[in-house]
Amino acid sequence: MKTIISGFSKLSRAEKVAMLIKQQKLSEDLDHTFTNYLHSSEQHLFSDISENVISNYYLPFSIAPNFLINDELHMLPMVIEESSVVAAASKAARFWANNGGFKTKVIDTLKNGQIYFKWDGNIQDLQAFKDELFQLILQVTSDITENMRKRGGGIVDFDLKPVDNMPQTYQFLIKFRTADSMGANFINTCLEAIAPHAMAFIDERFKDEYNVPETIMCILSNYTPDCLVKCTVSCPIDQLQPYAGRYTPAEFAERFKNAVDIAINDPYRAVTHNKGIFNGIDAVVIATGNDFRAIEAGAQAYAARDGRYRSLTRLELDADNFTYTLEIPLALGTVGGLTNTHPLAKSAIEILNHPTAEQLMQIVASAGMANNFSAVASLVTTGIQKGHMKLHLTNILNALNATEAEKQQAIKHFNDQVVSFTEVKRFLKDTK
Amino acid sequence: MKTIISGFSKLSRAEKVAMLIKQQKLSEDLDHTFTNYLHSSEQHLFSDISENVISNYYLPFSIAPNFLINDELHMLPMVIEESSVVAAASKAARFWANNGGFKTKVIDTLKNGQIYFKWDGNIQDLQAFKDELFQLILQVTSDITENMRKRGGGIVDFDLKPVDNMPQTYQFLIKFRTADSMGANFINTCLEAIAPHAMAFIDERFKDEYNVPETIMCILSNYTPDCLVKCTVSCPIDQLQPYAGRYTPAEFAERFKNAVDIAINDPYRAVTHNKGIFNGIDAVVIATGNDFRAIEAGAQAYAARDGRYRSLTRLELDADNFTYTLEIPLALGTVGGLTNTHPLAKSAIEILNHPTAEQLMQIVASAGMANNFSAVASLVTTGIQKGHMKLHLTNILNALNATEAEKQQAIKHFNDQVVSFTEVKRFLKDTK
Repeated sequence: MKTIISGFSKLSRAEKVAMLIKQQKLSEDLDHTFTNYLHSSEQHLFSDISENVISNYYLPFSIAPNFLINDELHMLPMVIEESSVVAAASKAARFWANNGGFKTKVIDTLKNGQIYFKWDGNIQDLQAFKDELFQLILQVTSDITENMRKRGGGIVDFDLKPVDNMPQTYQFLIKFRTADSMGANFINTCLEAIAPHAMAFIDERFKDEYNVPETIMCILSNYTPDCLVKCTVSCPIDQLQPYAGRYTPAEFAERFKNAVDIAINDPYRAVTHNKGIFNGIDAVVIATGNDFRAIEAGAQAYAARDGRYRSLTRLELDADNFTYTLEIPLALGTVGGLTNTHPLAKSAIEILNHPTAEQLMQIVASAGMANNFSAVASLVTTGIQKGHMKLHLTNILNALNATEAEKQQAIKHFNDQVVSFTEVKRFLKDTK
Repeated sequence: MKTIISGFSKLSRAEKVAMLIKQQKLSEDLDHTFTNYLHSSEQHLFSDISENVISNYYLPFSIAPNFLINDELHMLPMVIEESSVVAAASKAARFWANNGGFKTKVIDTLKNGQIYFKWDGNIQDLQAFKDELFQLILQVTSDITENMRKRGGGIVDFDLKPVDNMPQTYQFLIKFRTADSMGANFINTCLEAIAPHAMAFIDERFKDEYNVPETIMCILSNYTPDCLVKCTVSCPIDQLQPYAGRYTPAEFAERFKNAVDIAINDPYRAVTHNKGIFNGIDAVVIATGNDFRAIEAGAQAYAARDGRYRSLTRLELDADNFTYTLEIPLALGTVGGLTNTHPLAKSAIEILNHPTAEQLMQIVASAGMANNFSAVASLVTTGIQKGHMKLHLTNILNALNATEAEKQQAIKHFNDQVVSFTEVKRFLKDTK
């Protein structure tokens, strides 16, 4: 019988592996595998990142060239285990580089954290002290925020609000700017420093009427709807020819519009549509040493902000132009964290020529846009399973009860054409 | 001036690195870094996973022991760049192993994919042919699904529905089981095979009344609300003592309840609460070679399923018992994909003793539960910034205008106690 292990974390790496193999009744070969992927001289860099480390999980570190973002060319570092993501990003980047590139804009960079507390007092009465409270917040964090203020950040505002559906439960929602750092530690440290002073302030003013307020927790939020970036690609519809395949550029644009509108209106489709955006986003987020869980949670919740989970992109079509926009909250950092310690994260930041956090937001959004554009373009033309094209055509021909001669003609004709039911039906009719 | 690069993907790795360094005006040292993290003999395994690969991004591969799941002990492979996630998972696992462990249950394993199409016909008329259509779907995929059916999977049902807010836009929502594979390729292949036959069927029945239906796209959905697993931990409240710190177990449980209810009612808090769940989830998902973007998108949308983004966990407290439950959709695979090609993904599957997909769902859910439990327990007791505890206490003492003598006494007293405003105030009052 297996038993609960004590002191696993205190074992050496070799002892941990031995214990693992014994406890799970594994092959001794695993020891060789784990050793085989250790780094010969710099393993400490990776072992120090986490706990109970026995080996390294390699993810391919790739380059996607030709990202023209606000008229400047970038080569993007991407780290991802899914095949064809880097190829699709590169293909879309190249296309858009020849068609005006990605136009990006940081809407704002506000981050936030909450102090939640229980109190039997009247929140309206407390609102009267809002200015005094804000002065208190600034004052008690003044040492902590000194360096951040020098870099243009700090505490910028706060709200005092009830938590919905929870009586006597309130929050300070404090707003921060964190310059080029992601800012999680900074925000949490500020919040924990503020909480006791804020509780003391409330108690002092209201102790004759109400009980002592009690802090429940202090924590940053990864929901950052005001740390927002917009990325747009736009071109004359005629320019879409390289993606249109068998369709006219206008037909392609219309099919693309349908696909995006479906992703806006149908959550089942929205999820996978946005997943394609995150293929590009997360690949650059990981490469640059940022925390993809934070990015995913914040941006996925943003996709549901109006009460229904929807596409993060929107397409505008007029008679002549195709204009496609991604709007996404991205709280990223380019200093601190892994960028100080992980050699490949450092390299990724170098490859991007040491961007500011705002520049990285724009670069990451462009990667998301590139991957989504490629995915949707494939879906509405060749389909996602290109490799199965021949099977696909055969299926259509069978469905239309084509004769053997017709099949041969069709296979020849569709060799370099997009296969669709309508097109095959038209072909068969035309050749009768 | 930088110029658009042609043929980058066709360059050798060394040429790619040289081009990158030249184009981005980087230090030659980067070449050494990229080379330093290549694998000496098996680089092809990682270079073949993606495109334009120039190096490897190492992520620490860790072990979290003592996961008692449905009375069986597991050691979990975790791959994550965030410090303390593995430590927190291990600590919670150990605690729960001594308190009944994780009780998990797979609710269902249904996956789905859509064929979206435009049609000017009447969908109600088409519903009358639903049985015939289902027979058609089964028949035209019979070759493709043969192996999957032998493994207990296949196509199990379908719906025919309009897309909300989009006139003349409909979908076949087809439901699958995919045994131990994640099933993305299988589902997409089936959908693309079905679409032309389904369009032909509709056209055949309605060609005198309506135009030819036109497929927009065929694609699986990563939104899998019916591929769902539940994970519960439960113990008498008194047993929570090790986590309660300065609080009584009942006070701790009440504070925990407040924190969870806040995450249910406040999206700002829900996002970071769920992010803590995904710290554990994604670490095991990556280790086992699954696609974390698919898992994130599906489960994050599930968190917003009732129109508001909420916690994926719920806490029930009665007079004696603490019962905490996570419910999350997890479409995972334990065969195919990276588990065939990535040596560490293979190893992770071995460490887990070759689980079925359903077993992996339960293991992954337990990892998410463990990390969330640890995070919330910290938040409502010591706070997330334990390292700043002394600063924290000093802040409270200053806020309460403590004398120098009182400060010294308090620092001594709170050395091994949880610091909170209420507690410090009580201490100062008691020692006066």
